[in-house]
Amino acid sequence: MKKIGVLLSGCGVYDGSEIHEAVITLLAIARKGGKSLCMAPDIDQYHVVNHLTGEAADEKRNVLVESARIARGEIRDLKDIRAADIDALILPGGFGAAKNLSNFAIKGKDADIHPEVHRLITEMTEAKKPVGAICISPVVLAGVLKDRRPEVSIGNDLGTADAIEAMGGGHNVCSVHMIHVDEKNRLVSTPAYMLGPGIAEVAEGIEKLVQQIFKMF
Amino acid sequence: MKKIGVLLSGCGVYDGSEIHEAVITLLAIARKGGKSLCMAPDIDQYHVVNHLTGEAADEKRNVLVESARIARGEIRDLKDIRAADIDALILPGGFGAAKNLSNFAIKGKDADIHPEVHRLITEMTEAKKPVGAICISPVVLAGVLKDRRPEVSIGNDLGTADAIEAMGGGHNVCSVHMIHVDEKNRLVSTPAYMLGPGIAEVAEGIEKLVQQIFKMF
Repeated sequence: MKKIGVLLSGCGVYDGSEIHEAVITLLAIARKGGKSLCMAPDIDQYHVVNHLTGEAADEKRNVLVESARIARGEIRDLKDIRAADIDALILPGGFGAAKNLSNFAIKGKDADIHPEVHRLITEMTEAKKPVGAICISPVVLAGVLKDRRPEVSIGNDLGTADAIEAMGGGHNVCSVHMIHVDEKNRLVSTPAYMLGPGIAEVAEGIEKLVQQIFKMF
Repeated sequence: MKKIGVLLSGCGVYDGSEIHEAVITLLAIARKGGKSLCMAPDIDQYHVVNHLTGEAADEKRNVLVESARIARGEIRDLKDIRAADIDALILPGGFGAAKNLSNFAIKGKDADIHPEVHRLITEMTEAKKPVGAICISPVVLAGVLKDRRPEVSIGNDLGTADAIEAMGGGHNVCSVHMIHVDEKNRLVSTPAYMLGPGIAEVAEGIEKLVQQIFKMF
């Protein structure tokens, strides 16, 4: 049974993992007969956003603890996972990818990537294991793999696409129903809620992403 | 386009809505061509559980604010929703149904139901509109509709089944892949994570529940 790492970044689109994208990923993995291994870094969130008002809240939350909500408690500290433990890795989207796994939301093309995120993605690519990135999370791949010109898609947002190119990646326009595949670097991406418009369309792209990863084994 | 109310109770299986069940419900509604209207009561959670350790945390969180994470901010205060606003209502599971929408987790068969939850479910049943209940949330229906002998299933847990019977409901054994339908009261239930074992099996039952509700229009 193939074991797929799912790298979470909190629990909620504005300060963590996009919940629909994460759950649809877990469901698609199970329906392909795979087993998910959820993981997240044990760090404070960049901030906490009240998802009712959209405003920052005066609270502290931990990325691993909040990600555990999506994983129903079955989650590992990212620092304890090696590429040897999994057959593929998938990063759901949500602002957590750009605020917690990296600081792309703050620094754009000059973003720093969390060292453990950098390490695991580098290990996966060196081991030629597939990596999937959903929604905004292809910016993390661009930040880690800049010397390999990773080819990804976040849909059609010009600002983000330009930043990916400036980081050393290649950006490819893609619809929400579709995926972009970088055969050389074994990367798969889909725009999901970078484009929307709704959960059914987003699911179509994510299911194709998971199917593609299973084809790459 | 049919509008389906989705009554949330927080964000996380141990103190709110079970996230997988909620998202799979939203996806199934969209795939049937329906529109979801998420709602939750504007109240403090009974408590906050650290989903990594399983222990209660010294924190306060609000049910509506946390439910907004699952709804991507598109959510209404339960008190503002009437049966006339929706064509059907679905309650995902998670301990939130037994700690926030009711206090079944504390008081068992003597549970109190939150007054606004009681009001909306009563309105729906009086208007002969379908109501779906997933996982543990059939206990809420038993508490509200005790004078109508609601027939539901939470799987095969004897203690919970006995409590439902003691509250005035009827319990029916059902597998995770299946649904139980109460034609008279227009109720549909499925055991989901009351049985598990995983997200794919849970999704099968929830998808059948949503399909059944669309057949009842």
